[in-house]
Amino acid sequence: MPSFNPPLRVLMGPGPSDVHPRVLAAMARPTIGHLDPAFQALMEDMKDMLRYAFRTKNRLTMPASGPGSVGMETCFVNLVEPGDTVIVCQNGVFGGRMKENVERCGATAVMVIDDFGKTVDLDKVKKAIADNPKAKVLAFVHAETSTGARADAETLCKMAQAAGMLTIVDAVTSLGGIPLEVDAWGIDAIYSGSQKCLSCTPGLSPISFSARAEQVIKSRNRKVQSWFMDMSLIMNYWEAQGGARTYHHTAPINSLYGLHESLVMLKEEGLEAAWARHKKNHMALRDGLVAMGLEMLVAEKDRLPQLNAIKIPAGVDEAAARKRLLTDYNLEIGAGLGALAGKVWRIGLMGASSTPNHVTLCLAALEGTLAAAGAKINRGVAQDAARKVLFAS
Amino acid sequence: MPSFNPPLRVLMGPGPSDVHPRVLAAMARPTIGHLDPAFQALMEDMKDMLRYAFRTKNRLTMPASGPGSVGMETCFVNLVEPGDTVIVCQNGVFGGRMKENVERCGATAVMVIDDFGKTVDLDKVKKAIADNPKAKVLAFVHAETSTGARADAETLCKMAQAAGMLTIVDAVTSLGGIPLEVDAWGIDAIYSGSQKCLSCTPGLSPISFSARAEQVIKSRNRKVQSWFMDMSLIMNYWEAQGGARTYHHTAPINSLYGLHESLVMLKEEGLEAAWARHKKNHMALRDGLVAMGLEMLVAEKDRLPQLNAIKIPAGVDEAAARKRLLTDYNLEIGAGLGALAGKVWRIGLMGASSTPNHVTLCLAALEGTLAAAGAKINRGVAQDAARKVLFAS
Repeated sequence: MPSFNPPLRVLMGPGPSDVHPRVLAAMARPTIGHLDPAFQALMEDMKDMLRYAFRTKNRLTMPASGPGSVGMETCFVNLVEPGDTVIVCQNGVFGGRMKENVERCGATAVMVIDDFGKTVDLDKVKKAIADNPKAKVLAFVHAETSTGARADAETLCKMAQAAGMLTIVDAVTSLGGIPLEVDAWGIDAIYSGSQKCLSCTPGLSPISFSARAEQVIKSRNRKVQSWFMDMSLIMNYWEAQGGARTYHHTAPINSLYGLHESLVMLKEEGLEAAWARHKKNHMALRDGLVAMGLEMLVAEKDRLPQLNAIKIPAGVDEAAARKRLLTDYNLEIGAGLGALAGKVWRIGLMGASSTPNHVTLCLAALEGTLAAAGAKINRGVAQDAARKVLFAS
Repeated sequence: MPSFNPPLRVLMGPGPSDVHPRVLAAMARPTIGHLDPAFQALMEDMKDMLRYAFRTKNRLTMPASGPGSVGMETCFVNLVEPGDTVIVCQNGVFGGRMKENVERCGATAVMVIDDFGKTVDLDKVKKAIADNPKAKVLAFVHAETSTGARADAETLCKMAQAAGMLTIVDAVTSLGGIPLEVDAWGIDAIYSGSQKCLSCTPGLSPISFSARAEQVIKSRNRKVQSWFMDMSLIMNYWEAQGGARTYHHTAPINSLYGLHESLVMLKEEGLEAAWARHKKNHMALRDGLVAMGLEMLVAEKDRLPQLNAIKIPAGVDEAAARKRLLTDYNLEIGAGLGALAGKVWRIGLMGASSTPNHVTLCLAALEGTLAAAGAKINRGVAQDAARKVLFAS
């Protein structure tokens, strides 16, 4: 059985995004123990840097030891108890996953449904809150990875607060890519993923809980149904009082080295600069795609810069075209998910994959591949459209 | 905020163990997508190599995307439903964690308790099975990481089978270190950890389910309470029929590179050779410790070679001595857990930490440190005792 040597891909799907060599190098540093004083110092740095990225002072801010789905489930199982009602906004695949989580907690999910590709309709949410005065939590996805639509997180949080409800926010694809203000917006529980705009390897999920959420966890009627995700135990390892940490589970040491390095790089760049970079590269890609004659799925005002869903041109065999992009250019883009399967492609410009060279390569590869597939597109104009945005100054 | 550069430790605690440079190098290979054809080839290799390590033909054999605690919880939440009865053997910390899992599934745990450091008493289990004819599962820890005691897994499985019960076995510290025969013993659900005798970085949990367990999962009355750990969903990603894998969660790509490499190394060495290596290095350490006048916690016949619990000599400040080992020698050994806190040290000889040099360094460091701490030990004899085992031929 030989060692595994992966091909050198260009990752422009919905995540994982390209991982910077500095982060990969950090992953390979020598393993130390999860109770080592040196590791405890890394944990403190990590929490500080996550607070910076989330724009929060929340004490309970740390990476969960699993992918974004673990972050999601950690938020739900700690804040939701049997018999609770949770209003869940669904305008893509991940709102549906929230519903699964609510129901598996023995709670009732009141669904606010919008079409895949639309933003969350604030009027519908307002009505759902009015109709369910005893609802405990409002849950929504800030950046829908399955569609590329952005929710108005600030307004949704204010609506929940006015009704005395908690909020659970999916920031898997938003953290580090677009403005996100945990404290200013008053988010109570939030989770993200390491492999999107933070550009670390997949497998970790930054989470943060407000003081109010912490109180709710501490005054639960019954134990959290998951031992692994029970924050009342996890906080004794990550947020011990008096410096004495209690072992809960063995932390994924080397993965945390990687996330630490990606957060160091985020601080070096600056959060606002990272947001601006994601926006600029998106505008360049968009202008190139539109010049080519392609159509974006999401309306301009609701569009995420880091996840670009485009409609597949008529007559193109989408799976065959994606396969050509992978074999000819080593370029990975994402297929449609759920209701959008076969209808859109998802092009990620996240983290280390949000660069002018990624935009340039993607436009060239798409143009060549679509032309070869017989699609009617405008030739020879996309690169100039992108250059105007990328290199204007 | 600077990058994190860990100190170069020698890991001889209860895990993580030292990680071989080949595994660290694999962690740093370029990230590819979790649906990439090249990654799907790695997944197939991974499952084959885990079947080799577990000695099983089980279809459902794969790494869970989290530490050993996720493997444990995956076994319980998939096989146990509210109202079920589970007989749990507890002779250390991890049997207690099993109890937590059973109860959080809404089931009843019938406990078979033995002292920390003793093996599981077969007569007590026999009685518990007779007293609970409707019990669905017998759960026990093969290698108790908190004490260093080995359970007679083969006999326990035969007793469960005779009573028509399923078995859930904790092999976190046993896989790759001591004989373990999933098919020959008829184990129904088993979980391990990447960071023990497999000597990979922490964060993954190899699991395997028998065909009988798979049937139980498929005929459940209600959904698994954890979406993340629901095997009926996970198997569509890891064990898809007809080659079409369905996305469940984003796999921890680079961590899986590491586990793949550690399994390649296990195959190169051979499973029986790895067992023999763990045994030989244990005997050398044991002879050295005994020559020094130290006492092992666990009776010879029940002792694990990979996890050596020794009683702390009278008058020694155990935390101060462990700190000296870490600062003077960069050597990490483990403290006692639970009922054994302050009473024993746990010295791991697992995976890449099971070598003659680890034995030699550990004996020298312990002798010097204990002598400096004023313990009454025999000086100048440990190394010769170890050499007789290590270099006899």
